[in-house]
Amino acid sequence: MTVLPDPLLQDARDPLAEFRDAFVSKDGLIYLCGNSLGPLPLATRDRLADVIGREWGESLVRGWNSHDWIGLPHRVGDAIAGMVGADPGEVLVADSTSANLYKLAVAAMQARPGRKVVLSEPGDFPTDLYMLEGAIRTLGGDRRLELREPDAIEAALTEDVAVLVLCHVHYKTAALRDMARLARAAHAVGALVIWDLSHSAGIIEVDLNGCGADLAVGCGYKYMNGGPGAPGFLFVARRHQEALVSPLSGWMGHAAPFAFVDDYQPAPGVARFACGTPPILSLAALEGGVALSMSAGAPAIAAKARALGDLFIARVGETLELISPADGRARGGHVAFRHPDAYAIVQALMARGVVGDFRDPDVMRFGLSPLPLSYAQVARAADLLVEVVVTRAYDDPAYKVRAKVT
Amino acid sequence: MTVLPDPLLQDARDPLAEFRDAFVSKDGLIYLCGNSLGPLPLATRDRLADVIGREWGESLVRGWNSHDWIGLPHRVGDAIAGMVGADPGEVLVADSTSANLYKLAVAAMQARPGRKVVLSEPGDFPTDLYMLEGAIRTLGGDRRLELREPDAIEAALTEDVAVLVLCHVHYKTAALRDMARLARAAHAVGALVIWDLSHSAGIIEVDLNGCGADLAVGCGYKYMNGGPGAPGFLFVARRHQEALVSPLSGWMGHAAPFAFVDDYQPAPGVARFACGTPPILSLAALEGGVALSMSAGAPAIAAKARALGDLFIARVGETLELISPADGRARGGHVAFRHPDAYAIVQALMARGVVGDFRDPDVMRFGLSPLPLSYAQVARAADLLVEVVVTRAYDDPAYKVRAKVT
Repeated sequence: MTVLPDPLLQDARDPLAEFRDAFVSKDGLIYLCGNSLGPLPLATRDRLADVIGREWGESLVRGWNSHDWIGLPHRVGDAIAGMVGADPGEVLVADSTSANLYKLAVAAMQARPGRKVVLSEPGDFPTDLYMLEGAIRTLGGDRRLELREPDAIEAALTEDVAVLVLCHVHYKTAALRDMARLARAAHAVGALVIWDLSHSAGIIEVDLNGCGADLAVGCGYKYMNGGPGAPGFLFVARRHQEALVSPLSGWMGHAAPFAFVDDYQPAPGVARFACGTPPILSLAALEGGVALSMSAGAPAIAAKARALGDLFIARVGETLELISPADGRARGGHVAFRHPDAYAIVQALMARGVVGDFRDPDVMRFGLSPLPLSYAQVARAADLLVEVVVTRAYDDPAYKVRAKVT
Repeated sequence: MTVLPDPLLQDARDPLAEFRDAFVSKDGLIYLCGNSLGPLPLATRDRLADVIGREWGESLVRGWNSHDWIGLPHRVGDAIAGMVGADPGEVLVADSTSANLYKLAVAAMQARPGRKVVLSEPGDFPTDLYMLEGAIRTLGGDRRLELREPDAIEAALTEDVAVLVLCHVHYKTAALRDMARLARAAHAVGALVIWDLSHSAGIIEVDLNGCGADLAVGCGYKYMNGGPGAPGFLFVARRHQEALVSPLSGWMGHAAPFAFVDDYQPAPGVARFACGTPPILSLAALEGGVALSMSAGAPAIAAKARALGDLFIARVGETLELISPADGRARGGHVAFRHPDAYAIVQALMARGVVGDFRDPDVMRFGLSPLPLSYAQVARAADLLVEVVVTRAYDDPAYKVRAKVT
């Protein structure tokens, strides 16, 4: 018989335990949806009151200089760089993850002009595929998007591939791609790789430069706890920065944004991938979330994320079909199961104070965010999940009424 | 001798007087930079505390439905529509003004495939020209950007022009373009027009549908008082909505964003011009600013803006070279003057409690935002400007040291 780890003992030994008090929490609620929207850090609430009331309210337009709003996209970018194995000056916070993918995809295709193919996988996060379609439709010619199952990606890497675009961690299954291996395979045929780090940055080990990564995008509102619709970020390896030009060539990416000349001259470095005026309130919130992650440290976060996943999977045991990798080294920060009544199960859990996430048609996801969650909470949620399934509590017709899904 | 209007009398008769108390203000400061960043509405400060502490903090991911965050871009868009002569369902809040211009410019060029020219004017707001360069560079072929002085625009409208892009009000001079006339001229040769409303929306009469406008973009952080880096908006006339497709084809513009299918299918209506997840905190702040403008009403705002401009210009008289139209019907919401020591004059005014705005090399701009400003404040600022110029107070070397300019 397997001996399950004791979550109370794990909590007692948890070096990140103090971070649980850094977030607004609601008694009795176990929030396993930090992979969709991270919870509110207390410090962010206070910081935003100051940014709004004092910086905007009192400094007004002078805030761009006196509070260095103008430097915020780079300051937060440098902090994120420290979480994902990038160097200062390689990460910029800007726009949305989707827009950033468009910018990098177009720039990468233009840097590989003879090549026709953008390679990705079916079932990748949909907006990534949509943005690639849009980038190809804009550039035109005989470019095309080719989708290959994960095990056929390497074979599809030919000299006709301009750029390979993949999620580092799959949004449904949490399966982790081998960043270093795929970078080598792509580079061997002269292709570039763009990674979407939305489900890996801030939760598992990401070592962009150690893996020879070219380009990446990511999301601020999940494990970075940056607030609803927090701006996205993008990474451009230093060696590529001077060769790539953003299609969204706005003034914030100009070499001299306030000279007001008619001609576009890209800024040196990653700054050229900035576009319009950044949303300062949302950016300041993201800065607060990233600061918490920085203070906890990427290795400690990754270690706890893996342990939480192992704990959840062990306690669910054979009760449900696991579609995430059982091996923590091959898995992102969430765990997913399949069940024909997944929707009703997630509703039944909600009624028991556990917020999980349903994805059409039959998948339930549980995001195990290491900073706000305790081992005891995760164990309790797994036990409730087992109870709901074993007792068929989800058969209550009230749980089967579909609400609008986001 | 000209009899100047009495600002105290004007204040006593001002139907918008009560709105001055709706903003955070600083004793003794006269803020004439609302055309760069509008002041903080008191209601926005309170609303944001609630959005952050309760909506994000307590509702967490369920806020997308329970607080209708998902509808916010359309809700605020519909409110803006009411300010600019558009119908509900024609305006969407999304991304930045720059990114929105890119989306519409690419979509417009793709809708006019045989035509090579994007027409604009030199010295237009620089990021607009940069974005057009980017759009042309992405679409490629033998497309080109042609810049013509305002009085040569109509002559340059040929059947080779795909789209004409102009600022409705010039960011430096405040000169107002004739929207209806230029729309007719462009349509006569089969071209589309994109208007940048950044310096007209929320401050002067804008009648998009009355003028036969096709497309427009605009800014939320100026006269809309939406906060630093507030999201931009875009307008697509209903008759064009089904024919145009956004190059930034993200999931928020998909017909079924949460079905998670691999293929992009544009949403009906203006929604297809949404891209990634919108920044909710910044959007909620914009909603507060727009609500104030709606409550004041576009006609009352426009009337006061014109009167404030007339007052400022009359009191400055011959002391400075006016580069804005003297006729209020041909002018936007700010007034601009030229002087070789413009930089030092703006600094000297700042030392006297008046925040104006300098634009290289010799222009000073004063934004006359009708909701937060009184006639007495505007008169006092003009008098101080005259005093600084007449006494050459700006000759103090301290005023000539250039700080970083935003």
